[in-house]
Amino acid sequence: MADPVRHDKTARQLRLLSDALDSGRLGPVRRLVNTLSPAEIGNLLESLPPGKRTVVWGLVDPEDDGEVLVHVGDEVREGLIADMDQDELVAAVEDLDIDDLADLVEDLPDTVIDQVLKSMDRENRERLEQVLSYDEDSAGRLMNPDVVTVRADTTVDVVLRYLRLRAELPDHTDHLYVVNRRHQLIGWVALQSLVTCDTHTTINALIDGDLTALSVDASAEEVARQFSDHDWISAPVVDENNILLGRVTIDDVVDIIREQAEHQALGAAGLDEDEDLFSPVWRAMRRRLVWLSINLCTAFLAAKVVGEFEGTIHQLVALAVLMPMVAGLGGNAGTQVLALMIRGLALGQVGASNIRTLLWKEVRVALLNGLLMGSVLGVVVLVWFHNIGLSLVIATALTLNMLFAATAGVLVPVTIKRFGYDPALGSGIFLTMVTDVMGFFTFLGLATLVLVG
Amino acid sequence: MADPVRHDKTARQLRLLSDALDSGRLGPVRRLVNTLSPAEIGNLLESLPPGKRTVVWGLVDPEDDGEVLVHVGDEVREGLIADMDQDELVAAVEDLDIDDLADLVEDLPDTVIDQVLKSMDRENRERLEQVLSYDEDSAGRLMNPDVVTVRADTTVDVVLRYLRLRAELPDHTDHLYVVNRRHQLIGWVALQSLVTCDTHTTINALIDGDLTALSVDASAEEVARQFSDHDWISAPVVDENNILLGRVTIDDVVDIIREQAEHQALGAAGLDEDEDLFSPVWRAMRRRLVWLSINLCTAFLAAKVVGEFEGTIHQLVALAVLMPMVAGLGGNAGTQVLALMIRGLALGQVGASNIRTLLWKEVRVALLNGLLMGSVLGVVVLVWFHNIGLSLVIATALTLNMLFAATAGVLVPVTIKRFGYDPALGSGIFLTMVTDVMGFFTFLGLATLVLVG
Repeated sequence: MADPVRHDKTARQLRLLSDALDSGRLGPVRRLVNTLSPAEIGNLLESLPPGKRTVVWGLVDPEDDGEVLVHVGDEVREGLIADMDQDELVAAVEDLDIDDLADLVEDLPDTVIDQVLKSMDRENRERLEQVLSYDEDSAGRLMNPDVVTVRADTTVDVVLRYLRLRAELPDHTDHLYVVNRRHQLIGWVALQSLVTCDTHTTINALIDGDLTALSVDASAEEVARQFSDHDWISAPVVDENNILLGRVTIDDVVDIIREQAEHQALGAAGLDEDEDLFSPVWRAMRRRLVWLSINLCTAFLAAKVVGEFEGTIHQLVALAVLMPMVAGLGGNAGTQVLALMIRGLALGQVGASNIRTLLWKEVRVALLNGLLMGSVLGVVVLVWFHNIGLSLVIATALTLNMLFAATAGVLVPVTIKRFGYDPALGSGIFLTMVTDVMGFFTFLGLATLVLVG
Repeated sequence: MADPVRHDKTARQLRLLSDALDSGRLGPVRRLVNTLSPAEIGNLLESLPPGKRTVVWGLVDPEDDGEVLVHVGDEVREGLIADMDQDELVAAVEDLDIDDLADLVEDLPDTVIDQVLKSMDRENRERLEQVLSYDEDSAGRLMNPDVVTVRADTTVDVVLRYLRLRAELPDHTDHLYVVNRRHQLIGWVALQSLVTCDTHTTINALIDGDLTALSVDASAEEVARQFSDHDWISAPVVDENNILLGRVTIDDVVDIIREQAEHQALGAAGLDEDEDLFSPVWRAMRRRLVWLSINLCTAFLAAKVVGEFEGTIHQLVALAVLMPMVAGLGGNAGTQVLALMIRGLALGQVGASNIRTLLWKEVRVALLNGLLMGSVLGVVVLVWFHNIGLSLVIATALTLNMLFAATAGVLVPVTIKRFGYDPALGSGIFLTMVTDVMGFFTFLGLATLVLVG
């Protein structure tokens, strides 16, 4: 993809800012920070160590505070909120859109929430409460209840007059929704058609029939997939009676897609996507420990297998020299299969209907690569240790372990998913457990059978 | 993030389709396929093995063929194009938008390109040639030259009349661009303002001052970052003289973000994001071999280190049993640091200004975790082998290797990036090379010094 060195705007800003901070001249820092969008400020704050982060946070225009809080990870957000007093917090969040406010609510102190609720009018308060009543990663929680609706029997002219009275539309309004008397969704009309068609046209004639609404309990993942499958800018959210509840906009979807990608990348290493680059040492340590502890257990299992062959290794120490290669190469081959499978599962491309075809393909790839890599390894071992038996044993063991790796690479993530867990998270540990244990076992086992005795 | 089992629409469609295919009733398959959007059809095709894929591809409505080709990975696309004759291909692609056509051009046979160029009017042909003159991953290549421009001194009323004459706007038009006589970009006006303001207002009064245009040579990565930092739906592209060349729309940006995420996830395992789930076995094998061969070399290096200590292992076989644990746990700890660093580099959050602070944080985390995990491992080893010296050696070696892992986790990706390469691709190999080599070396080295003699 893109060349990573070409346009590093953020890194450049960061350097400028860092120099200005180091020199202690806060005026230029303030000016620099307040030329940025809230998302950019959030990104900058995330890249600063705690001390500097507090200083820069204090310089952000209070008007942007709320939007910045929306744009940073949970852990960084907690720290920023801790730096603010109650009045600042209330002022920062009370003007946010309902969906953004809903996103923040969990991190706000109860007293702040109370004050914000009090400052809202009844309609908005009820809307917020409704949004909060849905699951955290659902369309209901992502939606903004602020939508513009029209009736099918009005003319464009009337609608335009209504819009001019309204004077302002919610952000990213690209469609008006057409509803009936019971507020059920009938269709949508593009803003584009309103400005291009004859003003006497009735809305009815402009309704786009290809409407698919999001169900209020659709998962964030499903919402993201629908948006990118249909190139939507916004989409209506309805309940089970087709009553229009709100709309989800592409900006939130882009955030979901980014978060999902981070979730997969960091989750594979047992980390959370909300992890702060500059987490306090104690917190970072504890968080990583969980994953390392599981790894310690699987590593013991592998060591236990090697331990069963102490006698064999004692007779032929070359086995100890070579056994990590068999395990490691198997692990790497399996990781490749795993990466393909996890993508396929995330895209919904892998399922019961094609899993056997996939397994059969991967087993054949592994067999070919195993035979080839095994031959190379066998020849090198022959030259190194002058032991034809050892050479044949390692070639065979590597081929077998590649087959185990391919099988585990296909079946482990599918099994984890079948049990309702996220395959991006735990698959790696189980895969390397298989390739370590089977790598050591086949290599040392074969050696015991063939070479010593 | 989202619960992966909740709404697997694609997987469900895939199962239905697969059942229908197996039963040989192509009528239902055709009906099912043609209820889907082109992106969904692309996704389905990617999830089918080659035989079924050809059958389903033949059933897709020819009108959707072009859009489907745009939405599949390079490798799958090649196969689909090979299934079409020249006339079908020309018909499929000639009505595509310029940016989509530019995206496909490299995969089309020359004769098809010639025919498509001939079928275009001169303006569109020149536009296509201009788009193709820019780098593949640049704003110039992503943009669509079809934009609606207005002059600053006209009134909304006049603009609306012009739009009604035009009758159609390009997809995702949310802004009209304001240009001067030399076609230089002055600002933009939201479609929303046109429908909400008084019709006598001049465009001048509606211009949004906060305009940032994309430079035509901005990288795809930079484009994606700007879009998500500013919550844009579309953005204008200008050359170095501020002359308006076209616009990039959010749907293409969503594709970029998805591709970048796949690139990182698959790249970490040495695979290409365009890899077909059902690549022919020979092709898949060759592609993976490159990565496995590099791994074979680094594994030899690690084996060479172990080989230096054959004498020590012969005297104390327990060392062979335990050494993979020291190397493996170091590798896992390093992978965690690496995952954080690669995200930080991708977001532009890591640079010269904070790298030392980061390294110091990670070294402290590693020291704490190393001491803790080392102690646990030491106690278990003491119980297992009743050898206090061995227990102390492994505890020390693990702690040291965790420190090496943290250092490599921070410095390897930064160094790879400094040399202009993509840190998401090669970092993992180098990291595990460091943790394997240093893990074996410190453990066996310490054991040689302390335990045997």
